[in-house]
Amino acid sequence: MRPAFTVQASDGAARAGTLVTTHGMVETPAFMPVGTYGTVKAMTPEELETLGAEIILGNTFHLMLRPGAAIVAAHGGLHRFMHWRRPILTDSGGYQVFSLKSLRRISEEGVRFRSPVDGREVRLTPEDSSEVQLALRSDIAMALDDCTAHPATESEARESMERSMRWAARSHSRYYRDEPPGGLFGIVQGGMHRPLRLASLETLLRLDWPGLAVGGLAVGESEEERLKVLEALLPHMPPRQPRYLMGIGRPEDIVAAVTLGIDLFDCVMPTRHARNGHLFTTDGVINIRNSAYQDDLSPVDSACDCYTCRNYTRAYLRHLDRCNEILGSRLNTIHNLHYYIGLMRSLRTAIAAGSLAAWARGFLAARRQGGAVA
Amino acid sequence: MRPAFTVQASDGAARAGTLVTTHGMVETPAFMPVGTYGTVKAMTPEELETLGAEIILGNTFHLMLRPGAAIVAAHGGLHRFMHWRRPILTDSGGYQVFSLKSLRRISEEGVRFRSPVDGREVRLTPEDSSEVQLALRSDIAMALDDCTAHPATESEARESMERSMRWAARSHSRYYRDEPPGGLFGIVQGGMHRPLRLASLETLLRLDWPGLAVGGLAVGESEEERLKVLEALLPHMPPRQPRYLMGIGRPEDIVAAVTLGIDLFDCVMPTRHARNGHLFTTDGVINIRNSAYQDDLSPVDSACDCYTCRNYTRAYLRHLDRCNEILGSRLNTIHNLHYYIGLMRSLRTAIAAGSLAAWARGFLAARRQGGAVA
Repeated sequence: MRPAFTVQASDGAARAGTLVTTHGMVETPAFMPVGTYGTVKAMTPEELETLGAEIILGNTFHLMLRPGAAIVAAHGGLHRFMHWRRPILTDSGGYQVFSLKSLRRISEEGVRFRSPVDGREVRLTPEDSSEVQLALRSDIAMALDDCTAHPATESEARESMERSMRWAARSHSRYYRDEPPGGLFGIVQGGMHRPLRLASLETLLRLDWPGLAVGGLAVGESEEERLKVLEALLPHMPPRQPRYLMGIGRPEDIVAAVTLGIDLFDCVMPTRHARNGHLFTTDGVINIRNSAYQDDLSPVDSACDCYTCRNYTRAYLRHLDRCNEILGSRLNTIHNLHYYIGLMRSLRTAIAAGSLAAWARGFLAARRQGGAVA
Repeated sequence: MRPAFTVQASDGAARAGTLVTTHGMVETPAFMPVGTYGTVKAMTPEELETLGAEIILGNTFHLMLRPGAAIVAAHGGLHRFMHWRRPILTDSGGYQVFSLKSLRRISEEGVRFRSPVDGREVRLTPEDSSEVQLALRSDIAMALDDCTAHPATESEARESMERSMRWAARSHSRYYRDEPPGGLFGIVQGGMHRPLRLASLETLLRLDWPGLAVGGLAVGESEEERLKVLEALLPHMPPRQPRYLMGIGRPEDIVAAVTLGIDLFDCVMPTRHARNGHLFTTDGVINIRNSAYQDDLSPVDSACDCYTCRNYTRAYLRHLDRCNEILGSRLNTIHNLHYYIGLMRSLRTAIAAGSLAAWARGFLAARRQGGAVA
């Protein structure tokens, strides 16, 4: 089915809503844990559900290389392959190809690149991306975009954005050719150039999308540049469609973007940080590798009620990290995802109560005090 | 409390029993998953309980180096440090020191070795080993032994065994000096020399032990040599004490040893094999890395009802292994531990029914047919 979004409450530009998909409902603002290779690293699907995750993200680029779309399709799609029964959003592969830099060749047709897995040449056109995502049977698919490099001149950004818009139309055409299992989101590009962002949005709106994303951010721009783009763009985005800010980010970035009206987020930060021993707490990030924690009998965050904080000490987590124990990655990931998912719940509650501005001030003050390092 | 063993049923030399410890009861024959660094690799304590594990093993050698006995003791012992509420047996460190080879120096006092963690010189005497295990508060502790090298001449094996016996008395004396949290097992040594094994047993029996172990096996001897030692020794071991065969082993080794009257086992095989993609099935071991499984939609073992086999395909597990995903180690470990714990349950049932010999023949025939490779 086509994802259906309903705004349930708003507070200034911020909205709390529901997004109904083939595999169930998602409350927004929502954070999507990243499951690159058909697994949110270190977690079982049951653990993700217990943590309150309602939707996860899968990476088209990675899955088309390993295990390949055909093997996932033979299982009946990504849900059954990985044993996850709730919604999945798949990206288009555009951002990952962009990150390959010298190993890729972009043309009007699409992208050709050397596979980092086995060195063979791989083609990814807008049609290919839609076909892979149809095979994965994700609830939400993304149009293939040409992610604009940063910094980019106005003419570079325009050329890249206009190519993304032609690719968006081709992605759309291929995705809806037969009965699709979900819906396709378009992606606004245009670099840091606000007129180009608005032109991109205008072009996209000639087609019908169940949701729109803001792409081409988290590419090295400053926080100020990013907020300027969002402030210019968001008031023009259709109010009844879900808005997805791709690849962002830190808890404070999420709070700022929700305040401006963003509904969906994904980022590897909670899971990757966990594996590196960086743990989110009420007053900032701690590095569990620090020797100060070697005999610390307190939990990671005494205000936290996650499985890790209820049952294990900082000293134990530091020990597991030092010994490279898998359980350390698991317990850290549980804690960080609990933090992110709890953050989104708090944001939804504050929006529903009309108290987002005050909540956000308190949240940011506590994190600044603790010295957020992430 | 002192561990209390009761034979509940026997079938030939094999016994099914109960071992009651400070942290609860264990049904024997039992397999102890190995939790070297205060974690059975990749598992939570809750998962181990769900799998039916009733007792686990902790390694004194590893824990005294990382995080150090004092930090575990500050938590109130190993159970609370690692959040495991059932029984724990700790080894003495003797076998690990033995494995260090050139890095250790053995004297009558004990062993001095270079820490593989930070290079500092560490001392491990029988008294040290008992003290560390008292600090860990394990339910069952082991006397420090001098593990005899293989092969060894009669006089080498005798010298080593006699040192082990003097160390056993010192371990015992230190362990029982104050009120201990559990009980201490003695270890029979003597290499492959049967008269030495009997002499070792006779010496040990001058002291009071709640259980005895057979050590110095799994050091490179043939299966035939090992069985000869067990066949000579076991008829002389006290019938009302639990008997622990250290570090063994493969499923067929366990079946053979249970038949001869062994009650307790530990081995890294199910957990280590899991992380290397070697999975136990009814008809042998499969290597999930084999490309034959890349599009295999069947479970690891269609006769298995573990979490992994109920929810995931061989193709998915192979994919996780190829991508070095933590979830792969987790799912494989669940499957292999389920196999081992199920094996012990089947052995107990067969002993209670008086049908062990027939059961063992069927089990071994199925494994031979499938080509056991482990």
